Amino acid sequence: MHTTISSYAKTVTIGHDQPFAIIGERINPTGRAKFQRQLRDGDLSRVEIDVAQQVAGGAMLLDVNMGAPLADEAELMVQAVTLIQRLTDLPLVIDSSIPEVLEAGLAVYQGKALVNSVTAEDERLDTILPLVKRYGAAVIGLPNDEEQIPDEPQERLALTRKLIYTATERYQIPIEDIVIDPLAMPAGADTGNTMRTLETLALIREEFGVNTTCGASNLSFGMPDRHALTAAFLPVAAAHGLTSAIMDARTPQVVTAVRAADLLLGHDDWGAAWIAAYRAAMAAPATQAMPAMPGQAQS
Amino acid sequence: MHTTISSYAKTVTIGHDQPFAIIGERINPTGRAKFQRQLRDGDLSRVEIDVAQQVAGGAMLLDVNMGAPLADEAELMVQAVTLIQRLTDLPLVIDSSIPEVLEAGLAVYQGKALVNSVTAEDERLDTILPLVKRYGAAVIGLPNDEEQIPDEPQERLALTRKLIYTATERYQIPIEDIVIDPLAMPAGADTGNTMRTLETLALIREEFGVNTTCGASNLSFGMPDRHALTAAFLPVAAAHGLTSAIMDARTPQVVTAVRAADLLLGHDDWGAAWIAAYRAAMAAPATQAMPAMPGQAQS
Repeated sequence: MHTTISSYAKTVTIGHDQPFAIIGERINPTGRAKFQRQLRDGDLSRVEIDVAQQVAGGAMLLDVNMGAPLADEAELMVQAVTLIQRLTDLPLVIDSSIPEVLEAGLAVYQGKALVNSVTAEDERLDTILPLVKRYGAAVIGLPNDEEQIPDEPQERLALTRKLIYTATERYQIPIEDIVIDPLAMPAGADTGNTMRTLETLALIREEFGVNTTCGASNLSFGMPDRHALTAAFLPVAAAHGLTSAIMDARTPQVVTAVRAADLLLGHDDWGAAWIAAYRAAMAAPATQAMPAMPGQAQS
Repeated sequence: MHTTISSYAKTVTIGHDQPFAIIGERINPTGRAKFQRQLRDGDLSRVEIDVAQQVAGGAMLLDVNMGAPLADEAELMVQAVTLIQRLTDLPLVIDSSIPEVLEAGLAVYQGKALVNSVTAEDERLDTILPLVKRYGAAVIGLPNDEEQIPDEPQERLALTRKLIYTATERYQIPIEDIVIDPLAMPAGADTGNTMRTLETLALIREEFGVNTTCGASNLSFGMPDRHALTAAFLPVAAAHGLTSAIMDARTPQVVTAVRAADLLLGHDDWGAAWIAAYRAAMAAPATQAMPAMPGQAQS
């Protein structure tokens, strides 16, 4: 099953038989006080830097979140989406917890966006899915609802059923435009967390074959040497059915791990992309080619 | 199922619920002309260096191969096994294609060794399995025979059945003392190679639950940035049922990937081993803690 996401000029295909889709995650002021201040002052210069870095690092799509406290998030989303479309032709993921912000971003986006995200809560489904349908977008679905973020893979699968049923039956959104997040919880918080994520991925692939994504940095939360954990996680997750991730493309160690997974899982014939990426890294300045050191700050 | 391998002083348990077992691979003159010359001259000083490096890097067992052309391999095996038992208490893997060399090593080894290896060829089974039984050792079984190294996972599974049946029924070797190598072929040679290895691992785990191992460096043969490929492969393979690997413990990037897999797959409660390894790396000299650069020579 193929999910296509496009800009005015470029289409990215996400699929179980495709190279893993890297969704660059840094265009987001969460936890970045200076960036938040800049956005409140209407200064989007940091967005330009973040876009350039994600593109240089190998992002294939860009997640855009303008959730700065005390700022007009809808207006910022309009400005950011407009700006980013001038900077790059990569397709965008419009990311907000506020439906009005999603709509503002979709309204100025030229192409087929991916909406991040909708939960399995009835009120969220009935607010966000009509937007997705109206703008012909695709959408990331999170299998949690009013009552819980379920631990058990079977319960996550049940909420995935609800998401897919509601989107396809009630709102006539094509199933290939639904991308499920299996919920990657911190591995350090509970030893079973990652296995539950992997099992959820396998169940979703088996029952629906839909595409999947996750916030890749979440699972290493609270642990040292986070990049190494993420670099180990993504190939394992890809082997279980993860077809994209929202991740920081500035980290060569993690981007390389994803490209290695493509080769190992048979999505890179003759290793052509692997070899090309290696040559590009060798030709780049040393700081670009250097894997992150253990202990490097997660900024 | 637990496979225990022991020295005179230490026992390592290999199992699907255990931390991944790192078998240090460098005590082997294959492809190393200077080491071969030294061995022909009866000089085992290089063995001491290789043992020290593998131990420092985190090896939990050591593979010992003395296959230097034109040397008396059996005599060298006796000397090496005797020497290494003075240098370390890590359990040993006695590695040779020559049954007399295996027997010479087993005869001087104090503990329960792992024999590397036996194929599913009748003549090899009937030569090597009696040695394994006589010395109470465990053995690595390779699912290839006189006719072929099979491509298809189901054919590798069929030869695994033959190996296990012969060892347990004809030679009364306990099934937990049989460790199967799923055959990791170079990923660059054929895009489907790694998927076949992974599928073989899953089939073997499902039907027998036995432990497994492989030569981890094989799959990256012919590709650039081999450590990064190996670092991506081992966590994926561990998730499919690989419980040990013969690998170079000098490479922090690969050892770290294995430890990350332990954490992600639920074999490292609270990440205690992960955190301890990180602290040790931070306390070590910078060259120890530095991940391998892309393009680092494979020596």
